[in-house]
Parts: sequence; structure tokens; C-alpha cells
Amino acid sequence: MAAETEVALERAADPTRHDVLFSRRAANIKQSAVRDVFDISIRPGLVSLAGGSPYLKSLPLDDLGRTAQKIIAERGLEALQYGGGQGMEELRGLVCEVMAAEGIEGAVPDDVVITTGSQSAQDVAAKVFCDPGDVILCEDPTYVGALNTFEAYEVDVVTVAMDENGLIPDELERTIGELQAQGRSIKLLYTIPSFNNPSGITLAADRRQQVVDICRRNDILVLEDNPYGMLRFDGEPLKPMRADNPDDVIYLGSFSKIFAPGVRLGWALVPKHLYRRFYLACEAVVLCPSPLTQMLVSAYLTDYDWQGHLRSMRSLYRERCEAMLGALAEEFPEGVHWTTPDGGFFVWVTLPEGIDTYPLLYTAIDAGVVFIPGAAFTPSDEPSNKLRLAFSAVTPEDIVEGVRRLAPILRTAISELDA
Amino acid sequence: MAAETEVALERAADPTRHDVLFSRRAANIKQSAVRDVFDISIRPGLVSLAGGSPYLKSLPLDDLGRTAQKIIAERGLEALQYGGGQGMEELRGLVCEVMAAEGIEGAVPDDVVITTGSQSAQDVAAKVFCDPGDVILCEDPTYVGALNTFEAYEVDVVTVAMDENGLIPDELERTIGELQAQGRSIKLLYTIPSFNNPSGITLAADRRQQVVDICRRNDILVLEDNPYGMLRFDGEPLKPMRADNPDDVIYLGSFSKIFAPGVRLGWALVPKHLYRRFYLACEAVVLCPSPLTQMLVSAYLTDYDWQGHLRSMRSLYRERCEAMLGALAEEFPEGVHWTTPDGGFFVWVTLPEGIDTYPLLYTAIDAGVVFIPGAAFTPSDEPSNKLRLAFSAVTPEDIVEGVRRLAPILRTAISELDA
Repeated sequence: MAAETEVALERAADPTRHDVLFSRRAANIKQSAVRDVFDISIRPGLVSLAGGSPYLKSLPLDDLGRTAQKIIAERGLEALQYGGGQGMEELRGLVCEVMAAEGIEGAVPDDVVITTGSQSAQDVAAKVFCDPGDVILCEDPTYVGALNTFEAYEVDVVTVAMDENGLIPDELERTIGELQAQGRSIKLLYTIPSFNNPSGITLAADRRQQVVDICRRNDILVLEDNPYGMLRFDGEPLKPMRADNPDDVIYLGSFSKIFAPGVRLGWALVPKHLYRRFYLACEAVVLCPSPLTQMLVSAYLTDYDWQGHLRSMRSLYRERCEAMLGALAEEFPEGVHWTTPDGGFFVWVTLPEGIDTYPLLYTAIDAGVVFIPGAAFTPSDEPSNKLRLAFSAVTPEDIVEGVRRLAPILRTAISELDA
Repeated sequence: MAAETEVALERAADPTRHDVLFSRRAANIKQSAVRDVFDISIRPGLVSLAGGSPYLKSLPLDDLGRTAQKIIAERGLEALQYGGGQGMEELRGLVCEVMAAEGIEGAVPDDVVITTGSQSAQDVAAKVFCDPGDVILCEDPTYVGALNTFEAYEVDVVTVAMDENGLIPDELERTIGELQAQGRSIKLLYTIPSFNNPSGITLAADRRQQVVDICRRNDILVLEDNPYGMLRFDGEPLKPMRADNPDDVIYLGSFSKIFAPGVRLGWALVPKHLYRRFYLACEAVVLCPSPLTQMLVSAYLTDYDWQGHLRSMRSLYRERCEAMLGALAEEFPEGVHWTTPDGGFFVWVTLPEGIDTYPLLYTAIDAGVVFIPGAAFTPSDEPSNKLRLAFSAVTPEDIVEGVRRLAPILRTAISELDA
């Protein structure tokens, strides 16, 4: 064997040999805590209050199956071929109608990009706007998937405090001022204004324009992520921040919660002056979204009573949320607080200071219940005394049972704290 | 109106106001020339020798429609829900069988990530391995979509010369040496060894191991993109570079050419020691690939004679390639040369030096034929005397007609050069 080959084989055997090849950003790519728990959640007998999966059992699966059959049999050459990078015009038009139902008037298909879920739109936003070291502002707490995505671009994610009415405008202004004084470059405010994941908190109507105005004055784009906006339990959806601010807000919508996540489709409504680069970046990531699943969604929005289905979903989620809030009031010990969401999938629970919810997860799993520890939802590595409970995918009975299993664990943690 | 609001409105009116917010990499995100032409190609009457779309008309669309119906009706709660970030285990297992048919033995599902097309795997590879200024080596010419993706990460794409047997090992070694002497950090060799897009050239069997060995000695990973490998006109597929080099090659496969692009699914077979970060980065981009389209592909690989369909596709593409080569020999003027592919979708045409094929495109469109100018397939901004002709999506009659329309344009360009 030639010495060269020997050296080559030795190298091949060293599992750390290629570590030097990773990019700096690769070090920031973490296992999502939600995914950790996702794997655990499928154990039989466990009550999972962890994953924020939507309820799909009331979808008309037989009819949808026939629709898919028809699409492939009659328009298969289009459904199974490459499509355009912006997404299909038919669906982009329908997306404008969906947004009109959410309160965004006058959007046009030319400003819409269909994306491979909202996740992909978040990825592209970070890619198109952020250099390493740039700042993205976000709520504290915020969506773990967005954090993972942003950190993969070596972005500094800086949080802004919320109260029960969402982002606090004065805090936003103060944080921006501090960062600017340090010479930092702030590119985006990422916000989930309606039924924030994980907190369930909604940015109050009167704060929405204030927040956009602060960002506008400081040349910061708002990245408004609104997957749950139409899942308000009662009344009309709150007007998105995008509605009156077409030039300052990139609006992200998703079919995952109003239809089904398995189609992996969302959209971005992008200000005209930013559109071209945004959509080209989308194209560079996935070439095009799936025409097949786009056509299925288009058919769902055209031939089905999707608004009626949404109404029934809203009352189902309301019922589940009420079951959870009732059980929390009944079972949880004193010193524990939680949010009261007006929509969405999540309740955010705060334990007394000094308790770290991460180790509690393992006790909870032994007791047959799963949640997501609060630390997952902030960019900091500090322990968190919060946890997220999801009520979307679990029956009211299981919600009550899950809360019952969790309560003694919290009680023990609090008594150990006092001891 | 408050002065503040006035200022805000003035800013809102300025379309360049947010230009400062773009990342440095955004400047590298270009309109794909293929897409430019894609839009043109759909004009009626034009013969498009531009787009590399696969032939889908022989797919059993009625049966596939029924399969999709069954998936949604019977397993809709899984097909339409979120799935795992690595892709479904069933499909990852089947992918290993597909790769075995290509000559890669012993791959296991745990080393496979299902991706949203190969494009997404290319994006993730650049993201995980490349910092700005790092080098990716590639063939000259290479796939335009990969160039767009890599350049979006501020990577320096450096080309290595090919001859009719593919990448020239001495040239590869020389280029690496030069770059290393300049202190450059080379992360990946991106290669399409079988029926390279756009050139149709195949890396000869005896060079494959040489190329991997050179990369291994220099701690460069090979990113082997093999969408066309099974579309060899005659005989068995050439053994992929990954086959004997599991630790040094990230292998990318795609269902776009062996089944259908509309499902937007491909896969990456990743060395064990690199797998975790690779798949987490995939997850950060799209959360998960579509379970619905994954289940459709799994059913296609399980319940259909996909290998038989592939055999009929290979003879169809061979016939079309022969029609094109025959027409080129018949019609094209002296001084024009072209490749003779053993598989895939493309013939690469070289005109005499000094001719720029880009302006010829517009003359060609007027004459009713479209091709892709060669400049699209290199990272350089230099004019190119090459062009790509695709035979995959056009009937033999149309291929002959398209070549007939193109020939006089080349003849004129050559005579003007001599004048």
C-alpha cells in the first residue's frame, strides 16, 4: 500500500477530521428542543402538551383524497412538473383573498411568494437581510424555529420584553436606542403579534401601529409572522400590522394551521421594493414550491368551505383552551401563573423564580406528561422558570389528565425551593 | 399631522429606503438565466431547447391519482401533519434501495436526509460548510442553480477544467495547490459526475477515485450531485464516487428525474460524522419535507415498476439525444462542436472563439427557438461562446425543427466573425 493511501485511510478513520470544515454558523445550528420532545411524545400513554400540531381529524379526508386524485389524473403534467419560483399564480391570487379575510386589503399576487412553509420564509428573510453580527429583535419569548433559523446566519437575536398586551413599545424604543448607541445594525423585528408562540399573548390593537412606527423611524423592517391570526376564539381577527403598512412589513402566512402542515406551504407578502431579491433567494433555496401541494391547497380554498372549517376549528381550540385553563386553576399550586390566550395553540406558564423547568421535564416524562421548557424560546442560555403547554392536539380529557400529572411535580419543585 | 408622521411617510415613499438593509450576500442573489428563459419558453410556437424538464407523459397518472387518493383517505392524518426533520423512515429506507441500484451498497436510513429537492441540499451544504470567502470548487461548466445557491453564501466558486472525460485530475490538483498557496480555505468540490448539467460530460470511471483521493488528501469534501446517474442510455450506471468513499462524499440524489419534480423531493446521504449538523440545518430551513409527497414517492417506489419506467425513459431520452446529435451534424455549420452524452438531458455546443451566445438568444427567440447561453453556467461574468441544448422535454421532430431554426443564426454569427 502506498504511503499516500495509508495516510488517506488514516484520515478517513478519524471522525473529527472534517470538523475544521464546518462554517462558523454551523456551530449555531442546534437541535430544536421541540424536536427532542417531539420524539419523546410519540411514546404510548404519554399525554403530550408539547407539540403544537393542529387538529386534522375534522378535515374531509375522503373528499380531499378525491381532489388529489383529480389533480393528478387531469393536471398531472403540471402538478408533477417544475413550477415557477414565485409559486403558482392561482394560489397567489387565493392567498390575497385569505389575507383580505384577515384584514389585509388590496394585496396583489405579484407581491406574494409561495414558500415551503413559513419556516422557509424566515430562513430567506435572515439570508436576504442579515450579515453576521446584525441584530434581529424579537419578543421574549418567541418561536423556537425562528431562533434556530436566525442563529444559523450568525445573527444576534435580541429580545424585547412583553407584558400581557404584547411587545412594550417603550421597551422596544429603549432597546433600539441602546443597540444603536453601541453601533449595532438592527435589520428586522420578528414578531408573532397574534397568539404568540409560545406565550399565547396578543399584541394589543392600539400598540400595533406604535410598534411599526418605531421600526419605521429606525429603518427596521417588521417581519410579521401570523400563522394563528385567524384562530381567534371569538370575534374578528385583529388587523395585521401589514394592513396599513405595506412598505414596512414583510407578512408571513401559513397553511399549516388553517389547513394542514403536511402540504408544507406558506407565503410571504413582500413590499414591492424588496420583492425581487426575496423571491430570488427563495428560488435559490428550493427552486420552486411543490405544484402538486399548491394545487391541492388551491382546490381546498376554491371548492371547500374553508372558512366554515376554520370556524369549527376555532370553537374546538377554544374548548380545549378552556379545558386547560380550568384544569390549571383547579390543579396548579399557588405561586404559578399563566397567560389567558384569545386564540392560537398555547398557554405560557410561569413558576416562581429560581425554578428551572428543564430538569422538571424528565420528572414529567416519568409521570406521563410532556411540555416544552421555557428556555427553548429565548436566545439566552439561562435557565428558565417558564414552560409552554399546547392544547391544540389533545382532547379536553387528556388535557385535564396531563395537567393533573404535572401539578404535583410543580408542587414539589416549589416546596424544594422554599426548603 | 405630526412632524414625526410626516417624516415617516416621506420615508415610506422612498423605494430605495431599505436598500441599506440588504445583507452583503443578497447582492449575490441573481435572476437565474434558466428562469429568464423558462418564462419565454412557454410562448406558443417556440421550440424550447432551454429547460431541462423531464418527460412525464408516460407516468401512469390515473394510477398515481388513485394512490394519492388512498394515501389521503387512509393515512391523511399522517400525510397532512408535520413529520420528522430527517424525512420519513420508510422513504429513507427505499432511498437506500434506489442507491443500491445506482451502485452504492450498504447505505442505511440513518445516514439519509430527505430534502426539498436537491436544490435544498445544495443550499444546506453551503450553509453548513462555507463562511464568506471560502472556496467551492466545481466543474466548468456547472449547474446554474448550484452557482446561485453557493453565491448566496458569499462563497468563491472556482472552476476546474474538464475534458471529454470530465474533471481533469491534474488540473484539480493544480488549482487546489494554487488556492492553498494563496491561503484560501477550500471546503467542497461540487461535481455532477454523470452527464453533467449543462455539458452532458461524464467523469470517466478511472478518474473518479483519483478525484476523491485528491480531495481527501487536501481535506476537501466531495459534494456529488447525481440526479441523472440512472439515466444512462445504455448499460449499467457508473458507480458513484460515494460508493467506495463513505466518509468523504456527501451524495445528493433526486426524485425529479427518476420520478417527478413536482413532489420537490431529493435526498442527501451524509457521512456519519457530519450527519447531525447537516440534518439540523435542513430542519432549520424547512422544518420537515412534505409527508404527503414523501408517501406518494414511497408508494411509487413500492407499488409501481419504477425500474421499468426508468428503462423506457432511458430509451426515450436516447432517441431524443440521437435526434439532436443527428440534426446538429446535419444542420450546424463548420467550426461548431458539441458533446456526445451517454445519458442525461443535455448537449453542450461550442462556437468559435469570439462569439458571445447571449445576444444570439434574442435572435433565436425571434426565429422561434430557445437555448440557454453558456455564460449562465460559470461563475465568471465573461461572455461565453457556448450554449446548452436540452433534448429531454421535446419530441424528436421538434428537436430537429429547433436545430434547423438555430443553424442559420450560428452561421451568420460565424460569418460576421470572419468579416
